[in-house]
Amino acid sequence: MTEFVNDANFKELVMDTSIENRNDEGPMTLENFTKLMVQFYDLGWMRGSGGAMGCISGNELMISPSALQKERIEKQDVFVYDISQKTEVQRPANKRIAVSSCSVLFSLIMKETGSECVIHTHSKSANFITQLIKGDTFEISHQEYIKGIYDPFSGKALKYSDTLTIPIIENMPSESQLLEPIRGVLENHPQAIAVLVRNHGLFVWGPTWESTKIMTECIDYLLELAIEMEKMSIPLVKEGGFEKEDNLSEKMRTLLFSGVASV
Amino acid sequence: MTEFVNDANFKELVMDTSIENRNDEGPMTLENFTKLMVQFYDLGWMRGSGGAMGCISGNELMISPSALQKERIEKQDVFVYDISQKTEVQRPANKRIAVSSCSVLFSLIMKETGSECVIHTHSKSANFITQLIKGDTFEISHQEYIKGIYDPFSGKALKYSDTLTIPIIENMPSESQLLEPIRGVLENHPQAIAVLVRNHGLFVWGPTWESTKIMTECIDYLLELAIEMEKMSIPLVKEGGFEKEDNLSEKMRTLLFSGVASV
Amino acid sequence: MTEFVNDANFKELVMDTSIENRNDEGPMTLENFTKLMVQFYDLGWMRGSGGAMGCISGNELMISPSALQKERIEKQDVFVYDISQKTEVQRPANKRIAVSSCSVLFSLIMKETGSECVIHTHSKSANFITQLIKGDTFEISHQEYIKGIYDPFSGKALKYSDTLTIPIIENMPSESQLLEPIRGVLENHPQAIAVLVRNHGLFVWGPTWESTKIMTECIDYLLELAIEMEKMSIPLVKEGGFEKEDNLSEKMRTLLFSGVASV
Amino acid sequence: MTEFVNDANFKELVMDTSIENRNDEGPMTLENFTKLMVQFYDLGWMRGSGGAMGCISGNELMISPSALQKERIEKQDVFVYDISQKTEVQRPANKRIAVSSCSVLFSLIMKETGSECVIHTHSKSANFITQLIKGDTFEISHQEYIKGIYDPFSGKALKYSDTLTIPIIENMPSESQLLEPIRGVLENHPQAIAVLVRNHGLFVWGPTWESTKIMTECIDYLLELAIEMEKMSIPLVKEGGFEKEDNLSEKMRTLLFSGVASV
Repeated sequence: MTEFVNDANFKELVMDTSIENRNDEGPMTLENFTKLMVQFYDLGWMRGSGGAMGCISGNELMISPSALQKERIEKQDVFVYDISQKTEVQRPANKRIAVSSCSVLFSLIMKETGSECVIHTHSKSANFITQLIKGDTFEISHQEYIKGIYDPFSGKALKYSDTLTIPIIENMPSESQLLEPIRGVLENHPQAIAVLVRNHGLFVWGPTWESTKIMTECIDYLLELAIEMEKMSIPLVKEGGFEKEDNLSEKMRTLLFSGVASV
Repeated sequence: MTEFVNDANFKELVMDTSIENRNDEGPMTLENFTKLMVQFYDLGWMRGSGGAMGCISGNELMISPSALQKERIEKQDVFVYDISQKTEVQRPANKRIAVSSCSVLFSLIMKETGSECVIHTHSKSANFITQLIKGDTFEISHQEYIKGIYDPFSGKALKYSDTLTIPIIENMPSESQLLEPIRGVLENHPQAIAVLVRNHGLFVWGPTWESTKIMTECIDYLLELAIEMEKMSIPLVKEGGFEKEDNLSEKMRTLLFSGVASV
Repeated sequence: MTEFVNDANFKELVMDTSIENRNDEGPMTLENFTKLMVQFYDLGWMRGSGGAMGCISGNELMISPSALQKERIEKQDVFVYDISQKTEVQRPANKRIAVSSCSVLFSLIMKETGSECVIHTHSKSANFITQLIKGDTFEISHQEYIKGIYDPFSGKALKYSDTLTIPIIENMPSESQLLEPIRGVLENHPQAIAVLVRNHGLFVWGPTWESTKIMTECIDYLLELAIEMEKMSIPLVKEGGFEKEDNLSEKMRTLLFSGVASV
Repeated sequence: MTEFVNDANFKELVMDTSIENRNDEGPMTLENFTKLMVQFYDLGWMRGSGGAMGCISGNELMISPSALQKERIEKQDVFVYDISQKTEVQRPANKRIAVSSCSVLFSLIMKETGSECVIHTHSKSANFITQLIKGDTFEISHQEYIKGIYDPFSGKALKYSDTLTIPIIENMPSESQLLEPIRGVLENHPQAIAVLVRNHGLFVWGPTWESTKIMTECIDYLLELAIEMEKMSIPLVKEGGFEKEDNLSEKMRTLLFSGVASV
């Protein structure tokens, strides 16, 4: 595998230093990164060494390692890159350990959306909902947790009666082959803050690690609920749903950076 | 948003100092408050920054912050108000953090019922049961956990064969718009100690934080069980249920304060 | 409520000092007792202050308190009785706290069976299976976890192809009213090591706290599995099941004390 | 029971000292062994004293004890054997405690496949899937977690579109009677890295403890998912599945030792 420092999207990734600190708690640290891995494992998102997280913290980009048990990684197991210098700051001592194969997807999403964090889960609900819904989008409306989702175009949270739309793409033999489908999602669904990969899992991105984690929890809840609704033939989208805005011409990044989702 | 100290119901909230200490363990502390947030997160009640708690401790009212990850809040993140002086005793240093939007619901419920604690959960069972039951009340009888529910009119726990009734109200775009529907519940269902909000969650209130937490757990269990019963077409209410009392003229607060539910 | 030290069965409870120590780990301690309460809460057995445990340790009988949150009780909250002297050794300082209303059931079961431990759970599976099975016994065969159940008549574990039979009794308004139905179970089902109470929960007893806890976990697993089997119309009892022994004349206590179940 | 040091397969077990260290984290330790037991209990794999693990660490073979509560075992409760000397290095002080009855299955699997670790779980999904699938194999394809499974013949991970095949054998009254059926699996399904035992549980083996644990988690996820798929009549194997290789003549052990599975 090519070194991640040579990844095309990582090379073009720049920090917008004009933006003030938007973290509620503070920038990601290596200690917090590893604690979140434990929490995500306990939530069922990262079993069997699956799942990944990428997070910008100051001038550094932290990405989880591949193939290691996520609930057991320690600070020195996290890959760290300098965004300005495009150098590798830290990597595990064991040379067999590679950076997450999602790394190239994270750099694409971060570059295109201005997101500071991407969380990739292998939750069973994310997988199973894509088997119940044959089409290429998951949609749900009139749910309180929809208010936990950020709209990058308005810079505000979605409303209760809005329709949350999450594109579904087909899985590919390798993560790197998801690059073009995800690029397609970013182009065709500029309001998306997440994508489902059929028979695989979920990617969620947002302006901060806090908002990305919160949105991932909101979406996971909605997916679990939607599975129960599907089983009982309860429609996911109710009447009176969100009329999608047509004014999508504004620079997405600026918008995405302008607010934080909250419930 | 108007400052909570100017909230009409908070302004009218008075402590009945004639009542002796009714806590089994002792008054709520900030340390216990944050530990309970972790526990409620683990129970699935407060994922994605959702859910909230308000609790009177001595002369202070503690309320959880909005939008923060509930399992991560620390003592300094809790909003604390002086009930006698109607002042803000403590708030998070980060000025972007607001008090829970449920705060105005908590003050209403506390003022009207004399409750010292209100817990608001986003448990999936509380949400899903409101999609299975189309009407405006959830009712269940002949369940041991009904004995964990306090009847504010008798001052005692409900009996096994009683019918527990929890009103269901429709969700609204914002929490503050739930104020009038909840006021309606308190007027029309004076025996209620909880209300379900469709596609949203659950509010439970009681004389102490201990009894409120216990009742919330009992109700959550009954909701999960009721979902399984509904799926199998097992009636929730059995014959021989509780004849509701008609003598509701007594002052609810006095009654609510006179005992603690137990299982 | 009458003091437990005056309970008829407790008064007749005697320690068989001729029996050697049968604990795998060692006698129950107050510290272990409270840690097990936390574990049982986490397993979903003791939510909402429900559930209880009674355990003989040396010459003392320890019983959990009523109405307190089981995951939060501390060593001083456990009721301790001297079995020889028939005195109360310890009780919570708060005089409003009573011993578990199951205490009178525990003393009956211990006296009649020679068990040293009784665990009472409120697990949802124990409740729901009694709604799926209308009759008065739960039966399952050909399951590995049946080997975790102790047969007090043979002094050995059941076999894989044996039929485990757990009587089901109807719930009553108060725990004390379960005394006669449980007495009936002990007389009519002398091989029983557990009883289900409809819409309520489960009681399990055994020669040591270790074996009782293990059997409770095995039964809880079997109940959860049986619910899934019932939903899919898979028979719980397969052909080739256990022929119940007719030779039940031996002294049950001696037998119950003669071995420890294992998986 | 015969002493395990006299077990035929253990006697023939030899360490291939020419193989370099393949552990990602390092060899198994007694401390890690007991911590993993707690984790496996929490995952629902080792309730009611069920489940077991055997693991080679350097020149030692560690095996969990029988009948003890798996989440409570301590370092001194683990049985340790010297592989070169064929001696017992450590055993619990309590002579009533025996080594896991799976020990003879572990030595067989290790000898035949060169695996360094075998994990035996009692997860409900492993049990229930064998009741839904009447045949003698569990098969699933087109799932991301299939990439977490190691193919001992190619020395690489399976591909997304491969069909994972896990043989199902019938349960027997005692673990030792599973010896011949498992021997049959190893002969007839040389690519297998796991076997399901009907109404009982799952055995998984692999080149290291890390890869075995990861594969067990991947399989457990796939089994839980498959149960949901079966309930909704979604086929487990999709078109375009793996054409099984016919070239199985190479020495399995060498191959199994040549790589580590990763997701």
